[in-house]
Amino acid sequence: MDPLLAHIDSPKDLKKLSKDLLAQVARELREFIIDIVATKEGHLGASLGVVELTVALHYVFNTPYDKLIWDVGHQAYGHKIITGRKDLFETNRQLNGISGFPKMSESEYDAFGTGHSSTSISAILGMALASKLKGEHQRQHIAVIGDASIASGMAFEGLNHAGVTDTNILIILNDNAIGIDPSVGALKKYLTNVKKGTAKDENIFECLNFNYSGPLGGHDLYGLISELERLKSVPGPKLLHVITTKGKGLQKAEENQVAYHAPGKFDKTTGELLKKSDRPEPLKYQDVFGHTLVELAKNNERIVGITPAMPTGSSLKYLMEAIPDRAFDVGIAEQHAVTMAAGMATAGLVPFCNIYSTFLQRAYDQVIHDVALQNIPVVFCLDRAGLVGQDGPTHHGVFDIAHLRCIPNMILCAPLNEVELRNIMYTAQLGLENPIAIRYPRGRGVLLDWQRPFEKIAIGTSFEIKKGRKIAILSSGTIGNNITELLTAIKNDEALGHYHFPFIKPLDKKRIQQVLESYDHIVTVEDGSAIGGFGSGILDVANDLGPYKSIKLFGIPDKFITHGTQEELYRLAQIDMQSIKNYIETLL
Amino acid sequence: MDPLLAHIDSPKDLKKLSKDLLAQVARELREFIIDIVATKEGHLGASLGVVELTVALHYVFNTPYDKLIWDVGHQAYGHKIITGRKDLFETNRQLNGISGFPKMSESEYDAFGTGHSSTSISAILGMALASKLKGEHQRQHIAVIGDASIASGMAFEGLNHAGVTDTNILIILNDNAIGIDPSVGALKKYLTNVKKGTAKDENIFECLNFNYSGPLGGHDLYGLISELERLKSVPGPKLLHVITTKGKGLQKAEENQVAYHAPGKFDKTTGELLKKSDRPEPLKYQDVFGHTLVELAKNNERIVGITPAMPTGSSLKYLMEAIPDRAFDVGIAEQHAVTMAAGMATAGLVPFCNIYSTFLQRAYDQVIHDVALQNIPVVFCLDRAGLVGQDGPTHHGVFDIAHLRCIPNMILCAPLNEVELRNIMYTAQLGLENPIAIRYPRGRGVLLDWQRPFEKIAIGTSFEIKKGRKIAILSSGTIGNNITELLTAIKNDEALGHYHFPFIKPLDKKRIQQVLESYDHIVTVEDGSAIGGFGSGILDVANDLGPYKSIKLFGIPDKFITHGTQEELYRLAQIDMQSIKNYIETLL
Repeated sequence: MDPLLAHIDSPKDLKKLSKDLLAQVARELREFIIDIVATKEGHLGASLGVVELTVALHYVFNTPYDKLIWDVGHQAYGHKIITGRKDLFETNRQLNGISGFPKMSESEYDAFGTGHSSTSISAILGMALASKLKGEHQRQHIAVIGDASIASGMAFEGLNHAGVTDTNILIILNDNAIGIDPSVGALKKYLTNVKKGTAKDENIFECLNFNYSGPLGGHDLYGLISELERLKSVPGPKLLHVITTKGKGLQKAEENQVAYHAPGKFDKTTGELLKKSDRPEPLKYQDVFGHTLVELAKNNERIVGITPAMPTGSSLKYLMEAIPDRAFDVGIAEQHAVTMAAGMATAGLVPFCNIYSTFLQRAYDQVIHDVALQNIPVVFCLDRAGLVGQDGPTHHGVFDIAHLRCIPNMILCAPLNEVELRNIMYTAQLGLENPIAIRYPRGRGVLLDWQRPFEKIAIGTSFEIKKGRKIAILSSGTIGNNITELLTAIKNDEALGHYHFPFIKPLDKKRIQQVLESYDHIVTVEDGSAIGGFGSGILDVANDLGPYKSIKLFGIPDKFITHGTQEELYRLAQIDMQSIKNYIETLL
Repeated sequence: MDPLLAHIDSPKDLKKLSKDLLAQVARELREFIIDIVATKEGHLGASLGVVELTVALHYVFNTPYDKLIWDVGHQAYGHKIITGRKDLFETNRQLNGISGFPKMSESEYDAFGTGHSSTSISAILGMALASKLKGEHQRQHIAVIGDASIASGMAFEGLNHAGVTDTNILIILNDNAIGIDPSVGALKKYLTNVKKGTAKDENIFECLNFNYSGPLGGHDLYGLISELERLKSVPGPKLLHVITTKGKGLQKAEENQVAYHAPGKFDKTTGELLKKSDRPEPLKYQDVFGHTLVELAKNNERIVGITPAMPTGSSLKYLMEAIPDRAFDVGIAEQHAVTMAAGMATAGLVPFCNIYSTFLQRAYDQVIHDVALQNIPVVFCLDRAGLVGQDGPTHHGVFDIAHLRCIPNMILCAPLNEVELRNIMYTAQLGLENPIAIRYPRGRGVLLDWQRPFEKIAIGTSFEIKKGRKIAILSSGTIGNNITELLTAIKNDEALGHYHFPFIKPLDKKRIQQVLESYDHIVTVEDGSAIGGFGSGILDVANDLGPYKSIKLFGIPDKFITHGTQEELYRLAQIDMQSIKNYIETLL
């Protein structure tokens, strides 16, 4: 048969096809995703799981007039491909290419940008209420949400409100029993019972006043189409429960769903993952965290580890394997994770609560109200701080310094490298009187011999890495390694000093005073928001000390930074070493 | 009969009494609460509703060894009184007196500090998991949570996790069908069906793997005692559904539950509210918001109003009464409120999303990820910004400037008075390209003739209120009125200039440059966190402009501010006019 996908540039083309050809479209779409992601990388498994659903939705509904939101958006590749972005798809997640997530400014078919989980029900309800007010009674409103995401509190808030409206919304529960890692929690257990037929009469979604249908096989394209057709004319809030297999259609991806969530490059025929370089490389920071926590927990039985649905991404999985009783995956529930950690700490435990910097935004109130206000010594480990790269602006962890620095009682810290990360973790579990947040970036460290004996670090200390005469560069976090490289590269470097501040709060004021007195020019460097960040803290101290020379702040500027490699984004944000070098040369 | 309460200084004394005397204790406790709150003010209704439950819990359980958490904490007055704070109770909510909320540092009986809703399940689960790890299998863990609070997403996250643990926890659902305003949402509707007996077989809490019992009459003291005794030996997660009446025992409070949530002073016998002064007073800012929104909405049909469970507190109730179709109370669901507003705005509506400053912390991620990143023009109205007074540190809205200022695309604004609040609201609904947050304080404004014709304000503008020669005071928000008063009071005032910045972002850089050039000394004044706040923004601009004199920042210092009157707290935080005057006099 002729390839059909080549002729599909929008859902209109799909609708022109006779229904019996749609199965072929689905097959081609699946192959297309596999072909491209095999070489260009990306989120594979989720999109493979919803190929049939994607085709069915765009065939049945009148997008973009009908509103369609993909929760999280990992699963939206098929949607992007059949809504006019087929030829652009090979630029997925690259600088100047299309986003890995739905994005309103990219296509009118992306009704709402996603990235963080569980936002789709609230957003689609907002649109549906607007349609009602505007008298657009024919418009349909659909949100597709996974079973891991629907278990998050925000989704429940949306359901709880939607259930008492008479809006025309359809929530499609894409139940594959896995998020990035396998789903957890009572709702997951309940959904398993529903699928087995062992749940009792009344459905939990019916309790919330939804018209429930399903469970329905999510790879039965024609079954989906006929059920969606039926639901089109059912009024009020509806929930369709669809069972899918993550990674569907690529055997290895089905068998190892965690590894094939975002597998990197792989052989598109066999599915075999392609080996990366054999050259010894430093470990990822997340693994330094994961292994160090196990090491510490073996010697300190008060330590527990907590992750909201990121055992693999945070490497808390090592503790889950080594000491399962003391490691907790609470699901996509950052708010709960933080306050549960606070509860544990009041009982004398030392909770290491590992949350990606960007996701801690979900628990900001809990950090303030439940932890810091009561000065409870929870240890927050914030992975993926700074610019994360291809995941882009939904996932960059660039606001953490600014939003945490204003919270009383918090210790805020950004280690230089693996050894310092370990030592700060070691110090934290010795018993602090305050909560502490330790931020570190996505990706690999800088040392091969990271597993050195622990040393206690004095809270609030700083380090002179290199003494200079004229220009002092003050940095916090791993970006300090780039400064060291830069100083090595610049020849006339006697003028240049470099100071590393692992502690953004409390700041080493004595050191700042000495530096202000000893140098003509001060430059601060960080990979977080320049507004309210580390440099801003230095500025506060300098200002308190009295009249002074101005300070040059390098940090993330006041705009959202797009997706691309971390190196490209550093340049875009002008916190790359060339930008800093250029500035320094104007001073020399 | 002899008064019994006089002899109860701790739950130990309660346990010494023969069971048949407990009903008298409950009666006396209710009278005691009414007597004191009638003159000292406070949260009346919630505590009256749980008098029997309070007595039963402390009689049956072994507090403080057994852990007891009161969600939100409005209902904990009885608990405080019988756990050793009877004599202190008349200092409730006053500076140096006891807190209006449970507070760990105040009593070992307060297992966890509360204030914001829906934290109790997570915290008690953390404690229960800790008990399990420590082998303390006899310890009981109880959280009391209302039906409005259990419908919030965070509570669902806690239930979802707790349901798959084998911890010994008891969640008591205190179902009175009201939070501060009547409860809303599908869960509330469902609970009503449960109470009527019209719900089907399986209970929603059973779906989540809880052992459910109830509904039980919450004013039947001996029924409660016997059920709690039974549940003591039931293993695993349990939920007891108790039906209570808010305001129980004071007829007027039962009849008008919203007004008697926190009624101010009242006649303890009749319950009649005591009239405040007859002198004409400026309106509360919340009412200026509420009336202005109705005025605007009548002329702009795209306007909608959203409140997470605060129709009375925010005065959104006026829009709910005037145009009910376009006013949405979504329950305690700040996350949902914000993202739903974003969804509405994508469909062309102009959502005014009114959230107390302190509660916006609950939706920080949604503001960043769903609104600002997509640059969707939601209008946030942040009531209770700054120091709120007697509610204390859980409720102060002092972090909003710092955490919002670092978010790209946001406009951040703090009007000087009622007229400016109205004009900014007017400007916002004319159609902005960006989201905007408008912050204003708790309490009354400064003008009697606030309802003047609307005028458009230029985004990013600032005003010279008074020209001076030597010292420039730069303020943002209503605290500027205090500066005006201060300048009137200081005689030698030709030296002093005063500039009001309604826009914290974008800042009027031109004005700042002029001020820096024209004055010897710069002082900034705000009622938010000094770290990362308005003054910090001024400092950034000054620093960008080059070497300069130092700037004196008056803002909330880096510590949590206790409860007390707003005036007392201004002094404590040293942002009162005397503190500013003292500083200025050192310069003159």
